Amino acid sequence: MDPRARIDLALEKALERTHALGSPPLLAKAMHHAVFPGGGRFRPRLTVGVAMACREDAPALTDAAACAIEMMHCASLVHDDLPCFDDADLRRGQPSVHKVYGEPLAVLSGDGLIVLSFQVLCDVASVTVPQRLAPLVRIVSDAVGVPNGITAGQAWESEPEIEINGYQAAKTGSLFAAATMAGAAAAGVEDVSAWWTPGARIGEAYQVADDLRDVAEDAETLGKPVGQDAANNRPNAVAQFGVEGAVRRLQSLVEEAAASVPDCAGAEHLRALIRQESKKFIPRRLAAFAAE
Amino acid sequence: MDPRARIDLALEKALERTHALGSPPLLAKAMHHAVFPGGGRFRPRLTVGVAMACREDAPALTDAAACAIEMMHCASLVHDDLPCFDDADLRRGQPSVHKVYGEPLAVLSGDGLIVLSFQVLCDVASVTVPQRLAPLVRIVSDAVGVPNGITAGQAWESEPEIEINGYQAAKTGSLFAAATMAGAAAAGVEDVSAWWTPGARIGEAYQVADDLRDVAEDAETLGKPVGQDAANNRPNAVAQFGVEGAVRRLQSLVEEAAASVPDCAGAEHLRALIRQESKKFIPRRLAAFAAE
Repeated sequence: MDPRARIDLALEKALERTHALGSPPLLAKAMHHAVFPGGGRFRPRLTVGVAMACREDAPALTDAAACAIEMMHCASLVHDDLPCFDDADLRRGQPSVHKVYGEPLAVLSGDGLIVLSFQVLCDVASVTVPQRLAPLVRIVSDAVGVPNGITAGQAWESEPEIEINGYQAAKTGSLFAAATMAGAAAAGVEDVSAWWTPGARIGEAYQVADDLRDVAEDAETLGKPVGQDAANNRPNAVAQFGVEGAVRRLQSLVEEAAASVPDCAGAEHLRALIRQESKKFIPRRLAAFAAE
Repeated sequence: MDPRARIDLALEKALERTHALGSPPLLAKAMHHAVFPGGGRFRPRLTVGVAMACREDAPALTDAAACAIEMMHCASLVHDDLPCFDDADLRRGQPSVHKVYGEPLAVLSGDGLIVLSFQVLCDVASVTVPQRLAPLVRIVSDAVGVPNGITAGQAWESEPEIEINGYQAAKTGSLFAAATMAGAAAAGVEDVSAWWTPGARIGEAYQVADDLRDVAEDAETLGKPVGQDAANNRPNAVAQFGVEGAVRRLQSLVEEAAASVPDCAGAEHLRALIRQESKKFIPRRLAAFAAE
């Protein structure tokens, strides 16, 4: 099955719980709206890719891990879009959750998705390989909580001074690193620490890509830091290195990610997958800057 | 050690993670503010009480379970107090989290506490009795998530029509039932289903007490449903039964809770504890209505 279809199917299955007897129907709709249609599904694709490279022996657990990672990502987007944060009206080409369902259900759908991630891990681990629950709960919760997960990363924006490397590593890098580690853990790798680096590097590459998208939004000002980052006085790789330099930096991070893939049955295939998926990070109108 | 002191010590220890290297300091303060000073700590006291009645053999795991239950409760209060829900300026006699730290950190401290609950369970189970992690994650996550946990309960308020029993059971009852089940699970009881009823009944009693507090806020109008529930057109046990009737209903639920305590080493002591703790539910100015 196509990895994207596999992930979307697993997500639909995870969300079935929201339709169970006694569940409030609008919350179910808001949670679904937060998860579908997806963006690139980069993180869960990484989880599945790593699990397959490690010869996954419990595909249902891979799916659960991929769902947990993606639902945490979606939860963070719903909360980030709230009026008190980015006040974003649009997300993935459709109105944001709070625009459609109101702020209360946006807060609750984020909460619900965070909790659902653990419910799914617990349900599936219990009927597949119970001893893999603990590493998966640890990987996923640390990537989202304090001190170095998404929540902590987002909270840096409320500090008088931002420690920028920690901020980006927590807000973006942590879940990519968790995506690769969770794939390995779901496939039974006992020491997943070597799987941190490939995910973390891809996360850094994604952050550079985000900076590129930020300036690529307006073709007239391409190469000048005039987007959201500039407006919010946030550091931006394009401001630092220029467009070409930032694209080179992105490609070098992707190479580092590929090179750091630990020995495993499908290492070569996974390296190719990382290079291929990362190309999608670069905004189309900047593709000319990317050397083949 | 006094149970309250034991719980507060465990909570302080759980929150230590928020001070780790790289953690944003204001988020740490906001999370602490959400948890201290506590209210009655009824739920974690139940967890500890049940675990002791079941001859706890892993006190650190009891503490972790009690912390998880209480931190989930605190998270729900912080999110409930947000301007888009109850817009509450005060909580437990001090300004609410969003009043002191702003809405972004209030949203994030709720998220952080939800995740911290799982981090603490995972950390402690791993070094005590790993096979108890799965039941504890299941009990705690189901009590907070969909379809029947706090998040679902709160979401009923956004529906055009509230299914009132499901609403109260999810919003209040679920975490009390989880408190007793988690205490049993932490102490190694394999089938905790019989521990649902005592917690659920105490939760119902607490709900009636909440209704009593709602009307007792104004002595002039005692016995008339003129508080928040009336203003929000929410059903209220006092409106249904009057003050005396509601107090009788509360006491009868407490008796049902005590009677449903399953056989265990400390059953009698636990029954006494349930009766004693529940007396604190009744607002002082209504104490005269409570028959000894």
